[in-house]
Amino acid sequence: MPQGRPAAVPDDGLTTRERRNRPLVIVHTGEMKGKSTAAFGLALRAWNQGWPIGVFQFVKSAKWRVGEEAALRALGRVHAETGEGGPVTWHKMGEGWSWIQRPGTEADHAADAREGWEQIRRDLAAESYGLYVLDEFTYPMKWGWVDVDDVVATLRDRPGRQHVVITGRDADPRLVGAADLVVEMTKVKHPMDAGQKGQRGIEW
Amino acid sequence: MPQGRPAAVPDDGLTTRERRNRPLVIVHTGEMKGKSTAAFGLALRAWNQGWPIGVFQFVKSAKWRVGEEAALRALGRVHAETGEGGPVTWHKMGEGWSWIQRPGTEADHAADAREGWEQIRRDLAAESYGLYVLDEFTYPMKWGWVDVDDVVATLRDRPGRQHVVITGRDADPRLVGAADLVVEMTKVKHPMDAGQKGQRGIEW
Repeated sequence: MPQGRPAAVPDDGLTTRERRNRPLVIVHTGEMKGKSTAAFGLALRAWNQGWPIGVFQFVKSAKWRVGEEAALRALGRVHAETGEGGPVTWHKMGEGWSWIQRPGTEADHAADAREGWEQIRRDLAAESYGLYVLDEFTYPMKWGWVDVDDVVATLRDRPGRQHVVITGRDADPRLVGAADLVVEMTKVKHPMDAGQKGQRGIEW
Repeated sequence: MPQGRPAAVPDDGLTTRERRNRPLVIVHTGEMKGKSTAAFGLALRAWNQGWPIGVFQFVKSAKWRVGEEAALRALGRVHAETGEGGPVTWHKMGEGWSWIQRPGTEADHAADAREGWEQIRRDLAAESYGLYVLDEFTYPMKWGWVDVDDVVATLRDRPGRQHVVITGRDADPRLVGAADLVVEMTKVKHPMDAGQKGQRGIEW
């Protein structure tokens, strides 16, 4: 074997550079804290690269992600004012997706989730963002609101250099199969086990 | 059993409120990505609470954490300029801790690590921060540069409301025993397995 040639080269038709810079589908799953937290940590790196970041928050909660949202919105403002970093767009389900206005109508979470996914499809086709944070997106797939095969095919065929990170428990095996990087957050010890509930600054 | 009284109350001498708001020692360990990323994600929540954040970076690398550092420094500037969020202080080993000036001397990583830990001890005693990110701090403990029993005792006896998150592989069992929350980042799938190396915006 000639020196400097790796023993195994993936049969993917890519150059080494293309392979290195191939955009990733990342899944953070498992029962433990850290799935979304790590996704938002990843957004800090993307921001520093100047990539546009699109956050799509799929589960409604009064408290969840308020810290991350405030901080990432502040970083988006830093970009707008100084040019440092990249722009941040935050889409939140449950308060109505930002592109949908339906005042006075009943909440329909399944329809909201499908509309969110349709917007992501449009953004992927338009190459709107460098990093997509699809927070808690495993749940609408688990609950059958969004078709897993459609998600997998859309991610596989997305154009350009768009990284996608998906968080939530119970990631579908088809999604895991399609992903490049999958981390499972595993519990070793949780304060709840010692009778301590969640608190501000830690859980939200 | 009277209604509304939990079956088991921890024998810790704390009221429910005190127990709920008891500051945490958090450990992110395991072989997989996400340990530090999730710690910096946690820093976003702390920032939003207005807590002073102290980052102590224990392993030198040209690339590591440049994204997180730029973003958290930007958030620190937002705080300084507008009062939103909290202040951020970033201590980096390997470029010399910010409080040590020894130009022209040979690198001594063990001494650097011990000096870093001494500074953390002083900051804990002074209640300098609401959140301490001790990034890659498991390694100086693993390598015997910093005494684990001293770390455990210092964390146990720290005053006030100071949360501490420690990242890195191979967390010492004594540290795990002393922590309130321990997450293990477990590999399900990594791009390296498919011949893909790390890339900007994702790894740093």
